[in-house]
Amino acid sequence: MKLLYLLPGNVEIGLGVKEMERRGAILQSIAQPGTTIDISYVPTGPASIESMCDEYQAIPGVIKAVAEAEKAGYDGVIVGCAGDPGVDGAREMVKIPVIGPAQASYAMCSMLGRKFSIITPLEEMIGTTEELVVKCGLKDKLASLRSTDITVLDINRNPNIAKERTLEEAIKARDIDKADCITLGCMSLAFAQIDKEISAEIGIPVVNPLTAAVHLLESMVLMGVSHSKKAYPLPIKLRG
Amino acid sequence: MKLLYLLPGNVEIGLGVKEMERRGAILQSIAQPGTTIDISYVPTGPASIESMCDEYQAIPGVIKAVAEAEKAGYDGVIVGCAGDPGVDGAREMVKIPVIGPAQASYAMCSMLGRKFSIITPLEEMIGTTEELVVKCGLKDKLASLRSTDITVLDINRNPNIAKERTLEEAIKARDIDKADCITLGCMSLAFAQIDKEISAEIGIPVVNPLTAAVHLLESMVLMGVSHSKKAYPLPIKLRG
Amino acid sequence: MKLLYLLPGNVEIGLGVKEMERRGAILQSIAQPGTTIDISYVPTGPASIESMCDEYQAIPGVIKAVAEAEKAGYDGVIVGCAGDPGVDGAREMVKIPVIGPAQASYAMCSMLGRKFSIITPLEEMIGTTEELVVKCGLKDKLASLRSTDITVLDINRNPNIAKERTLEEAIKARDIDKADCITLGCMSLAFAQIDKEISAEIGIPVVNPLTAAVHLLESMVLMGVSHSKKAYPLPIKLRG
Amino acid sequence: MKLLYLLPGNVEIGLGVKEMERRGAILQSIAQPGTTIDISYVPTGPASIESMCDEYQAIPGVIKAVAEAEKAGYDGVIVGCAGDPGVDGAREMVKIPVIGPAQASYAMCSMLGRKFSIITPLEEMIGTTEELVVKCGLKDKLASLRSTDITVLDINRNPNIAKERTLEEAIKARDIDKADCITLGCMSLAFAQIDKEISAEIGIPVVNPLTAAVHLLESMVLMGVSHSKKAYPLPIKLRG
Amino acid sequence: MKLLYLLPGNVEIGLGVKEMERRGAILQSIAQPGTTIDISYVPTGPASIESMCDEYQAIPGVIKAVAEAEKAGYDGVIVGCAGDPGVDGAREMVKIPVIGPAQASYAMCSMLGRKFSIITPLEEMIGTTEELVVKCGLKDKLASLRSTDITVLDINRNPNIAKERTLEEAIKARDIDKADCITLGCMSLAFAQIDKEISAEIGIPVVNPLTAAVHLLESMVLMGVSHSKKAYPLPIKLRG
Amino acid sequence: MKLLYLLPGNVEIGLGVKEMERRGAILQSIAQPGTTIDISYVPTGPASIESMCDEYQAIPGVIKAVAEAEKAGYDGVIVGCAGDPGVDGAREMVKIPVIGPAQASYAMCSMLGRKFSIITPLEEMIGTTEELVVKCGLKDKLASLRSTDITVLDINRNPNIAKERTLEEAIKARDIDKADCITLGCMSLAFAQIDKEISAEIGIPVVNPLTAAVHLLESMVLMGVSHSKKAYPLPIKLRG
Repeated sequence: MKLLYLLPGNVEIGLGVKEMERRGAILQSIAQPGTTIDISYVPTGPASIESMCDEYQAIPGVIKAVAEAEKAGYDGVIVGCAGDPGVDGAREMVKIPVIGPAQASYAMCSMLGRKFSIITPLEEMIGTTEELVVKCGLKDKLASLRSTDITVLDINRNPNIAKERTLEEAIKARDIDKADCITLGCMSLAFAQIDKEISAEIGIPVVNPLTAAVHLLESMVLMGVSHSKKAYPLPIKLRG
Repeated sequence: MKLLYLLPGNVEIGLGVKEMERRGAILQSIAQPGTTIDISYVPTGPASIESMCDEYQAIPGVIKAVAEAEKAGYDGVIVGCAGDPGVDGAREMVKIPVIGPAQASYAMCSMLGRKFSIITPLEEMIGTTEELVVKCGLKDKLASLRSTDITVLDINRNPNIAKERTLEEAIKARDIDKADCITLGCMSLAFAQIDKEISAEIGIPVVNPLTAAVHLLESMVLMGVSHSKKAYPLPIKLRG
Repeated sequence: MKLLYLLPGNVEIGLGVKEMERRGAILQSIAQPGTTIDISYVPTGPASIESMCDEYQAIPGVIKAVAEAEKAGYDGVIVGCAGDPGVDGAREMVKIPVIGPAQASYAMCSMLGRKFSIITPLEEMIGTTEELVVKCGLKDKLASLRSTDITVLDINRNPNIAKERTLEEAIKARDIDKADCITLGCMSLAFAQIDKEISAEIGIPVVNPLTAAVHLLESMVLMGVSHSKKAYPLPIKLRG
Repeated sequence: MKLLYLLPGNVEIGLGVKEMERRGAILQSIAQPGTTIDISYVPTGPASIESMCDEYQAIPGVIKAVAEAEKAGYDGVIVGCAGDPGVDGAREMVKIPVIGPAQASYAMCSMLGRKFSIITPLEEMIGTTEELVVKCGLKDKLASLRSTDITVLDINRNPNIAKERTLEEAIKARDIDKADCITLGCMSLAFAQIDKEISAEIGIPVVNPLTAAVHLLESMVLMGVSHSKKAYPLPIKLRG
Repeated sequence: MKLLYLLPGNVEIGLGVKEMERRGAILQSIAQPGTTIDISYVPTGPASIESMCDEYQAIPGVIKAVAEAEKAGYDGVIVGCAGDPGVDGAREMVKIPVIGPAQASYAMCSMLGRKFSIITPLEEMIGTTEELVVKCGLKDKLASLRSTDITVLDINRNPNIAKERTLEEAIKARDIDKADCITLGCMSLAFAQIDKEISAEIGIPVVNPLTAAVHLLESMVLMGVSHSKKAYPLPIKLRG
Repeated sequence: MKLLYLLPGNVEIGLGVKEMERRGAILQSIAQPGTTIDISYVPTGPASIESMCDEYQAIPGVIKAVAEAEKAGYDGVIVGCAGDPGVDGAREMVKIPVIGPAQASYAMCSMLGRKFSIITPLEEMIGTTEELVVKCGLKDKLASLRSTDITVLDINRNPNIAKERTLEEAIKARDIDKADCITLGCMSLAFAQIDKEISAEIGIPVVNPLTAAVHLLESMVLMGVSHSKKAYPLPIKLRG
């Protein structure tokens, strides 16, 4: 199958093309035999996504790119940001499955334990992330939301500090908030590939939203299912 | 005080300038002595808002216009669509209160009875409207969501049919879903000013999101309160 | 319009007539041009309301006074206690809107942020206050309930100490309980008019139940809506 | 042990002394060996309790009578109305257990099946009864609330019609609302002692709030437990 | 009436026959005049029940023993473990009431205060105990779950240490988690009969699941009610 | 990878060995390249699983077989019944991922739409299935539970009738209960492979618990994650 990993931000002013290529290589290495994963980005998007304003700037380009991906023959698309920006809008435009790493990682956490916690970059993302958990229907499974207090772009610049801070908060989530499973609320943390080390140190599973999104999207394609067009109908303006 | 009523759609290709002017006159007639309400629209918005794609197309222009409104000295802004598109993003940009008619009307319904129902134009808007009720924290007060199965633009063309269909669904909401209060999930229904007639026919309050938004925004300005900047902080990119 | 602010306690044995007059002057100063607010009290009520027993002692007189207020031509009534004692019973008797400061302030908080906290006088009022939040349908928006451990009458005697204690708890609500908005669960705190100073110190909105009640009641009158008579029907014994 | 069954209404203008005596005999016949149950009423109460106004009229007398019952050496009190009027206030005044038939019957239903329904006399009592279920913490167990559309006093006058209507609604609760257990939301239905016949006809348990209240209160006394004085503290005014 | 208290574990390899006899004597001393309580155990059960594996090992024997108890003429059965193992399965087999001490004690706590906490032996039982509270429909009443970190068999060996640790956690539940009522999540704690002493020390009710189960089962038998056969039908394989 | 699909029932007295072989072939055909799926069954299990008694009879054998599967080098196990019997107990025994088709299919439905419905064989399985949805944390996503009123073994005997009845209920779930996604609450329905046809007829996704379980388990193995041993610890008796 042929999948697209779509970065909603403008890589040129943000992560940089080299980092995008590094991520593309990681994605392909994760993919199953028979799966090709391309990576691209939204030129009209922001440098990084750390606010609702950033999300809203990114979304129109995300929707456009997802519609083009379907026409170009992709079997599914991952919107590559842990806020799942515009996934609902993009689903209205296409029949191929579209998934966000947040929903994928929350669903995976919900199957591995009783209560999970999410570690986000900045404190100020906690409110909107909690709204996303509620939207995914998994509030009863949420132990807590915690933040590293590091910006997304700094996570890329200082992966070791990011890992240290994430580990500290993961330990608090486990011991204070009684989480038995952790996920990372940021794709830069995800691509830092620190989940296995942290899991080894804290003794509970750490779900990487990156691998969760790739394998759950592969699963949807293999199952021949996609999002409900009753829930996400083609906008009335676009109907014949 | 000076308030702005911002239509997130592009009036020229949608409602028409004449309808916008009619709405502006209604708004001013509702305003309290001492309140001026201007009306404007988002040129980059869609003809009407009936899908998440429509909302996302409108939002970047909404955020920009709200930021400009604050600079222009407005005391508060109403985002004039019953989906409250981009209110959270706009709040990040400004300190003046920004409110959507949906949240205002739900809050008013929550104070008038035990369970309220929302009548939306199209069935397909029910899912996202329910998500909005949950986001407003009022799920426990929701009796039901029902739709007239008329598009937003047709509501403007045929207010009488719209009123008939709204009345039919309001009666079902009262008798089948046990609602004791009703609100209208569409600003074209709101500006059709059918709420008093329907309330008289069904014997329970019908909250007009238009008057709810105007008077609750006036109340916020009079109280000297606005949305929490802890909940809606200025995006980090824009900080000094 | 003509509104009544009804103190459910017996002022002569409690707050004192002078304090009632001070409150009456504050109310009138808050009212919009064209609004007259009278203040009165319930002679059969307790000295102060700090328990369910106090509330129940006050309520029969509240219901009687609200029914008389409607006959006397008032356009709406505020039951002036942050426990909203007897509002549901009073609504059964009349068609004019009756509102409590608690419900009004909770509704206002729900529109300003994601999670709000309530500061009450005594720890022992927390349980019944939480029941009130649930009754208002806003449990999902509640961050926490905290108390100053000062009695209502002492708040009137020592407004400065009350302000200090309220500030301390408001800071804990913001930092420990993650509230992004605060309200005051006591009308003596409300009439101490400390909300603006505390808000300035903690950097999040503090909703004064006094101004919330006045302006939301004015809004109901201006909108021409009142509580649902389906939810609050005239007692069957009193029907023709 | 010595228990008091307190009718919150004024029997002389309502049920009649003969009916009270009939109920007293039924209560004693239900009591376990070693239990004496006295019956009395609140002279300041209403003829019947079918609105919040009725409840609030009854409550001050209920609180007074419960406090006197403790002084008189009773081991526990049942507030004999399926709205549990003033139970929280009465609990503040005493250390002996005070229970309402509503809470007792809901707790019993919660142990017998997955979802229970409540049959109340009038439609207009459904809203406040649902608030009571929420207050008892059992909303997740509630299948539905239904009404017979017969007034409390008519239930006493026409027990057969009351039984027919209750049976009809119980069948709907079982088949439409998927209840697997039923309770009666009215003490006049309870004292009509129709629960066994209805249960036999519908094949699911029908909990009589009368026997539930008597045996759960006996259980509390036998266990040596009472309501928490942390939850229901003596009003501060009454403390030494 | 004749009741059976069924120990789901194998007493010979666990508690010991002497301890079972001691418990049998306590049960009979609790029973009301006219109630006989026999005690027996499940030979195929584990030494103690501290995991889901232990519960599942015990359950087939519990179901068998409950079915035999009904044939032997018992009026009701208590499954004597605070995990209520197999109560739902056993209810499918019989018409006589079957109750677990957990559900009985949670229901009793729900009637005595607003929020209760449960003290379990081991931390690792907290997750499954919380699931049980949810299953009983009482999640809204739960303040917290805490553990003594002592195994079930050690509780029997060192009742004093168990009491100390339970007291410590009960105080935290009251002061940190705001519980106003406590119950014990282990029958070895229950039979240690420490509830009255702890309640005296912490000033809030402590519900003993042992007395709760005995008296609530007696209440069911006296009321002539049992679990709903619609909720717990005889397995289809066993129907005529 | 090497996976085991474990039938909790005794195939010899139930489905029959031929049906098990047919299912084994289907499983292998679903598996990804590089995945081997063996099928086996629990000789101590019941003929079919249609009650909690059936589940409890099956579970001890399930736990034993899962523990042996880990020792035998399997990478993961599917407990092949839509009641997920004993999954929590089995997880305590092993470190390899163990998953049930119910949890897998509910998680998949939660990602495809807003509200899903479950079609079970018999009405009497609805109560326990709802408890399972709650345990999976997805109650907020549940539209309804419906049943075909056909026994599990009859589903195998008459796949066409089963398909007709499932289609009828799926249409009601979509139109009456407003589900936008459907799953099948029975593995015999799953192995009837009617999901694609039904989905084509009703126009919304139908999730087959069979393919959901296989691909989500493959995903867990590929991600290198398993259930949390904090949530499902090795029973204390079995620790060194």
